[in-house]
Amino acid sequence: MAVTGSCVQITYRCLFKMSTVEELKLRVRELENELIKCKQKTDPETPAHVRTKIEEMSAEVVDSNPYSRLMALKRMGIVKSYEKIRSFTVAVVGVGGVGSVTAEMLTRCGIGKLLLFDYDKVELANMNRLFFQPHQAGLSKVEAAEHTLRCINPDVVFETHNYNITTVDNFTHFMDRISNGGLEEGKPVDLLLSCVDNFEARMAINTACNELGQVWMESGVSENAVSGHIQLINPGETACFAVRTIFVWQCAPPLVVATNIDEKTLKKDGVCAASLPTTMGVVAGILVQNVLKYLLGFGTVSYYLGYNAMEDFFPSMTMKANAQCSDMHCRRQQEEHKKKATEHPKQEVVEEEEEVVHEDNEWGIEVVDEVTEDELQAASGPKPDLPEGIIPIYTIPPEKVRESPEDMVEETEQSLEELMAQMKKM
Amino acid sequence: MAVTGSCVQITYRCLFKMSTVEELKLRVRELENELIKCKQKTDPETPAHVRTKIEEMSAEVVDSNPYSRLMALKRMGIVKSYEKIRSFTVAVVGVGGVGSVTAEMLTRCGIGKLLLFDYDKVELANMNRLFFQPHQAGLSKVEAAEHTLRCINPDVVFETHNYNITTVDNFTHFMDRISNGGLEEGKPVDLLLSCVDNFEARMAINTACNELGQVWMESGVSENAVSGHIQLINPGETACFAVRTIFVWQCAPPLVVATNIDEKTLKKDGVCAASLPTTMGVVAGILVQNVLKYLLGFGTVSYYLGYNAMEDFFPSMTMKANAQCSDMHCRRQQEEHKKKATEHPKQEVVEEEEEVVHEDNEWGIEVVDEVTEDELQAASGPKPDLPEGIIPIYTIPPEKVRESPEDMVEETEQSLEELMAQMKKM
Repeated sequence: MAVTGSCVQITYRCLFKMSTVEELKLRVRELENELIKCKQKTDPETPAHVRTKIEEMSAEVVDSNPYSRLMALKRMGIVKSYEKIRSFTVAVVGVGGVGSVTAEMLTRCGIGKLLLFDYDKVELANMNRLFFQPHQAGLSKVEAAEHTLRCINPDVVFETHNYNITTVDNFTHFMDRISNGGLEEGKPVDLLLSCVDNFEARMAINTACNELGQVWMESGVSENAVSGHIQLINPGETACFAVRTIFVWQCAPPLVVATNIDEKTLKKDGVCAASLPTTMGVVAGILVQNVLKYLLGFGTVSYYLGYNAMEDFFPSMTMKANAQCSDMHCRRQQEEHKKKATEHPKQEVVEEEEEVVHEDNEWGIEVVDEVTEDELQAASGPKPDLPEGIIPIYTIPPEKVRESPEDMVEETEQSLEELMAQMKKM
Repeated sequence: MAVTGSCVQITYRCLFKMSTVEELKLRVRELENELIKCKQKTDPETPAHVRTKIEEMSAEVVDSNPYSRLMALKRMGIVKSYEKIRSFTVAVVGVGGVGSVTAEMLTRCGIGKLLLFDYDKVELANMNRLFFQPHQAGLSKVEAAEHTLRCINPDVVFETHNYNITTVDNFTHFMDRISNGGLEEGKPVDLLLSCVDNFEARMAINTACNELGQVWMESGVSENAVSGHIQLINPGETACFAVRTIFVWQCAPPLVVATNIDEKTLKKDGVCAASLPTTMGVVAGILVQNVLKYLLGFGTVSYYLGYNAMEDFFPSMTMKANAQCSDMHCRRQQEEHKKKATEHPKQEVVEEEEEVVHEDNEWGIEVVDEVTEDELQAASGPKPDLPEGIIPIYTIPPEKVRESPEDMVEETEQSLEELMAQMKKM
């Protein structure tokens, strides 16, 4: 359009064509735009980010207040005390397709402090998801993210860790930061969000949170990019993810949302998972919405919410912890949870629990891949009542098979590998 | 800080002081002079974006390929021909909380061409939603958006219009660009997305699309920020939005998702609507997912999908066009649709229609504001079978009241105003 043309042409247009007040006002706006952009380019003193820190969140309705639309949630009767958001610390593990958008949403909401963990670099191959931009290719994800997020909202405190949490040393450091990295050093974080794309990292988070009694939320997007889920895990109350080996009891297998798609294609050629900015945006959105509801105490906090993009279907459910879970810390947390529940009969944060629908003992589930319905019925381990559309990613073999593990080492290892392959990049 | 400061002053002066044509012309000349001086200072060769254009979408799995994860959708069996995305043009009307994220998702997906319409400026008060950043405050939304989007993906063709589509002249131009602004000039756009925040703009889009037979999708987020919806409108097939006056038949009122919240608070003090990056991100995500499914032919395209963030509830439904709709173009499109349906019995794009659940003639609906259930039963106009959780934003008075419109002009105007107030910023 004319804006990008030269000034001579602009003048010509101005003198001979513009006559009405509306047209002239538009022209003034266009020119003001151009001038701002031009001045930003030339003025070396222009700081990278324009906005200065804001001491106190205000509800004042002026264009220059970045918090007016959030503080309006109070007037609308949704949140009692929105400004409390500044007192919370959230750790985001994995700053990829879901984690980066999650961090951005929390930043824009004015969270007190964000801890970011990731060891990956930004690549052009990530550009099909929101947040990162091509000029950031090559930078570490946590550093690139911190820079952008700080420009967006300098009121948030950031702490970044550019490492893999699953190595022994890093895991110890990770545990320490979850325990002590709160807004006030020495206090734990208020919530941990798992936005990782692999099995090992999920299990590391599960172990850490069971040991620390840390409430966390898990998120995931399928390899075919058309389903995802979020899950709230309160150690001792809800089912954890523990799965030390496939021979011992666990709380519950990680659940995925069925998509009625032949997953065979996926298994044969697992080189590169598909991903979509839409699915990741929706999962990040429902995740951070759940975080806000949990931290600020409004609405119903979801224990499990799935998203099947093919059918626009959103199954939800609740799963209690298993008393025979293999994770000793999970069992300990369950004991502590029982004790607390007796002392304080009602929990204040989660307002309402959804009734688990028992689908006529027909399971109401579909089975992926090798797991047939017969196998599922024969399988040992906890059998959660799953609502339609939610399926376990694997099952545990029946008891009798598990009696002599020594005899079948080969098959066992095979199964574990298969399991890992299935869960990788979930 | 200086940039934003001066910008605000400029805006103030523009809006409140300048009124006459002479003053405006003087201001235009002043600004043009300043711009010329500024441009003389800058380097003529500014490398704006890092990534170069890519001639052909490739599925090659390398870190430098921004399309690898999208092309992987083919191998996963989700999409037959992902690269077709490049042949499509989408118009986004309204580049705010939902529209900007919508445009970013489509850009990252590699859409062929994007047309952006908005007349608003970026403000710091927008920073609680995704996409825009503080340093863009003062710029026009379409220009700021185009700059960011071009950096993200220079393969997309952008066309921006910094105007209000509801004025007579602009509406004519808008209609022309929808009809002729396709990738190949002279061809219509493939889809129009309404991401506006007010009643007038929605109605202008409805009128334009009915006249042109243009398929479009509507989106909206409630003033209390905790519910939203998307809707597909295929003129002649599904219900349109027409509402010329409250005395004549219409297709259907715009629908919103119930949140069980006392909306009285909202009406009394309507100065500033609340908004959340989460709700807007989810709505943009389900909108663009629907766009991808519609354009690339996979999954089930949704006719109406709601999002109640308080309960994590996602109602869906379908509504057919009303043969007695007040919009003559809607009726004409219905005739044409019937003719086409007879000629080609099966539609290929929409794979499956959801059954409308009739809730025992109990309506299964809740009522906002002044609209009581009795009023709703007494109301004339089409009465769609609404699934639980979806409510009309207003009703039409019963027939007998509508017999003598001349006698009740005052009440009529009052009602229309109320209606507008209700729908504003919906």
